[in-house]
Amino acid sequence: MRPYELTLTAAADAIRAGRLSPVELVDSVLERVERLEPHLNAYATVTAERARLAAREAADDAAAGRLRGPLHGIPMGLKDLIDVAGVATAAGSRVRADHRAQADSAVAARLGASGAILAGKTHTHEFAYGLITPQTHNAWDTGRVAGGSSGGSAVAVAAGTATFALGTDTGGSIRVPAALNGVVGLKPTYGLVPRHGVTSLSWSLDHVGPLTRTVEDQALVLAVLAGHDPRDPASLAGPARDYRPGASEDLTGLRVGVPRNYYFERVDAQVEAAVRRAIDGLEALGARLVEVEIPMTRYIQATHWGLMVPEATAYHERTLRAAPELYQADVRTLLEAGELMPAGDYLRAQRSRTLMRREWARMLQDVDLIAAPTVPATAVKADEEVITWPDGTVEAVSEAYVRLSAPANVTGVPSLSVPVGHDTAGLPIGMQLLGRPLGESVLLRAGHVYERTRPARELAPVV
Amino acid sequence: MRPYELTLTAAADAIRAGRLSPVELVDSVLERVERLEPHLNAYATVTAERARLAAREAADDAAAGRLRGPLHGIPMGLKDLIDVAGVATAAGSRVRADHRAQADSAVAARLGASGAILAGKTHTHEFAYGLITPQTHNAWDTGRVAGGSSGGSAVAVAAGTATFALGTDTGGSIRVPAALNGVVGLKPTYGLVPRHGVTSLSWSLDHVGPLTRTVEDQALVLAVLAGHDPRDPASLAGPARDYRPGASEDLTGLRVGVPRNYYFERVDAQVEAAVRRAIDGLEALGARLVEVEIPMTRYIQATHWGLMVPEATAYHERTLRAAPELYQADVRTLLEAGELMPAGDYLRAQRSRTLMRREWARMLQDVDLIAAPTVPATAVKADEEVITWPDGTVEAVSEAYVRLSAPANVTGVPSLSVPVGHDTAGLPIGMQLLGRPLGESVLLRAGHVYERTRPARELAPVV
Repeated sequence: MRPYELTLTAAADAIRAGRLSPVELVDSVLERVERLEPHLNAYATVTAERARLAAREAADDAAAGRLRGPLHGIPMGLKDLIDVAGVATAAGSRVRADHRAQADSAVAARLGASGAILAGKTHTHEFAYGLITPQTHNAWDTGRVAGGSSGGSAVAVAAGTATFALGTDTGGSIRVPAALNGVVGLKPTYGLVPRHGVTSLSWSLDHVGPLTRTVEDQALVLAVLAGHDPRDPASLAGPARDYRPGASEDLTGLRVGVPRNYYFERVDAQVEAAVRRAIDGLEALGARLVEVEIPMTRYIQATHWGLMVPEATAYHERTLRAAPELYQADVRTLLEAGELMPAGDYLRAQRSRTLMRREWARMLQDVDLIAAPTVPATAVKADEEVITWPDGTVEAVSEAYVRLSAPANVTGVPSLSVPVGHDTAGLPIGMQLLGRPLGESVLLRAGHVYERTRPARELAPVV
Repeated sequence: MRPYELTLTAAADAIRAGRLSPVELVDSVLERVERLEPHLNAYATVTAERARLAAREAADDAAAGRLRGPLHGIPMGLKDLIDVAGVATAAGSRVRADHRAQADSAVAARLGASGAILAGKTHTHEFAYGLITPQTHNAWDTGRVAGGSSGGSAVAVAAGTATFALGTDTGGSIRVPAALNGVVGLKPTYGLVPRHGVTSLSWSLDHVGPLTRTVEDQALVLAVLAGHDPRDPASLAGPARDYRPGASEDLTGLRVGVPRNYYFERVDAQVEAAVRRAIDGLEALGARLVEVEIPMTRYIQATHWGLMVPEATAYHERTLRAAPELYQADVRTLLEAGELMPAGDYLRAQRSRTLMRREWARMLQDVDLIAAPTVPATAVKADEEVITWPDGTVEAVSEAYVRLSAPANVTGVPSLSVPVGHDTAGLPIGMQLLGRPLGESVLLRAGHVYERTRPARELAPVV
């Protein structure tokens, strides 16, 4: 197995045991970047020179028995909204053409302190305001969309051009591309991972989280990312926990909620079949399936948009007035629409969210997690703009992709997307596990026990 | 001493000891109401018959040794925004002409269960949206304003037409009339007293709290009111505490913050002198005075209005469209202005509040409480609309009255207004003690130790 093929856990173990040098790993990943980037365009910036320097240092340290932390010598991709001192944060936008971060974001600092090495900054939909990431190609079929807005991160992890990556998720932007590229993506509980130094889309919905090849890898990264930072006003108090899923091999006693409404409506038949098979797999592992009714579903979209649109506009207010022509047309339209939104709509969305959180908390008293499709369809071709459902309804691709993932942003509950197979075209399918606030450990344990029953993961067959 | 003259604590003790019958007390208060209401107009509804029935029941129970609770047989006034089953809640408005509450508000239910008896519903500025209560006359000079919006409650307590009362406070509406009528008023910590069944003005700023003749009385009522109610989304978890101030006679060790900015600017010289004398009084009792700098003062007004205006408009949205002519001109103008406010202004106010709370928390690390004037001037004549300050600036009366009390609403910290003397016209002056969130016990102890050093309180000399 070549180093770039290793999961994060395997690579970290190998470095710790002295069987693998950070130089070998970083070189292997950077060569893979060089070979695949012309096909994928996952990276906005590749920091090869910086990474090689860091790898040599990490190798010296490892040889001397000095490991910085659990991610010592591991190359990563960071979505290009996440500041790293001295590196550009272009946020997928001409608005940021001359931007260079002065200081590390909270998460970059924590990852650096734990030994991770930046391979590069990964592409995003402009300012994360979209579900596509148009620059980047799907790792499984370069004629198809990567999903977004953390498309670059998902594609890099899927293709082996990063051992792991970070994304951000305001309506599904970690989980959507994770599902479409066959990797694992976690949107943690709102407030668990601090956002200081990460470009905001909508601060009451924004989350930062990992993209990895396995659920086990997720736990390693989350333990580094989680924990209070007073510079993020929404950051939760309390120390980080150990999220490692442990050795348990079954799910006896776990109550898995299966939605009887919303999550299986207007869902592609192959996606539904794969997710239901995976849910049966959870049951076979000992879980008890419980039907649940998702509350307030007709308010989800209005609440999500009612929060996101004015918050995004407020963030961009000055630049939008100074240089509107620098934005892409889709993003500029959304930002300008936000200027016309009355305060009443925003506060109604906030009240609706309060009620929705309460109803979800009530529903989650009866189950330990909820299992559902992450997205209702696999990756569409790059030029497809709508999905036509069997019932005749036509839905914009971006609306379809956000539909099942947005509830976790509105309610703040954690959601983990895991690969559960492929459709007949060979495109990956994702299932999300939604849990109680701060219930990450439950999701990671269930996801890990499930992934151990599946064939070993292979990288996307890019070329 | 006639029964209506008794403080709440004295009356409750006398009833408990069998020295006073609830019938005597309620009759005495209702006679006082009959005699003074033509001069004060503190009540929107007097529930005399209902109160007499309840008093007889309470007397029978007391005679049989059955006390419902700490407020057994005590007559009270409830601001006419607070629902009591079977009684009108007119909210000072023609909009509510035909309204009759179906069920008790959370606070009415708690007070009823503790034995208190409703004497009547007290006047408010229409929907609490003003600092005057134009219907009601100041208890110390009927040609002057009562203050508002809980003007009826403050006047009733000051004049002996209620043994205690409840008000609501969105920008100072308990504390302003308390100060102007020489009684004690508490705006508790945001979320401590549940608001279910209380007409909302601005839910993120609204508070319910007691008006009493002494600080000791406050503790009795607050212990009954405080505690979680899931029907108020902002209600804090956690049980009510014992708020009784205890027997300590000095304030040794207490660090009292004295603002060097904001709270003594544009303040009437007699008000400033009385408050500074009271602060010296705290020092003489053992407190240590510490100068503090109030943070972000230039954002207070914009933040307060930016939150209140759209929230009030959202609450009235339907009625305002259906029957705008039923509102008074001042309130209708404010509500209609709210419809034009953009979402961006509201969310900027929310962000500003978040920062302000953080800065206040930092300031309150260094002191146990802050002492300051409650309002910058005593009660103005009923027809005065502006105050002209010595520096030549002219300020609307309602803006002057809200200026020093609004910070506690924006930040959510508790604030207790206590009487500290009179100006040369004989009008009462109030000092507020502001504390840390859930620091009510500290405020009540300081206020109580202070009030014990002062001459016995007398009722307002109404006629």
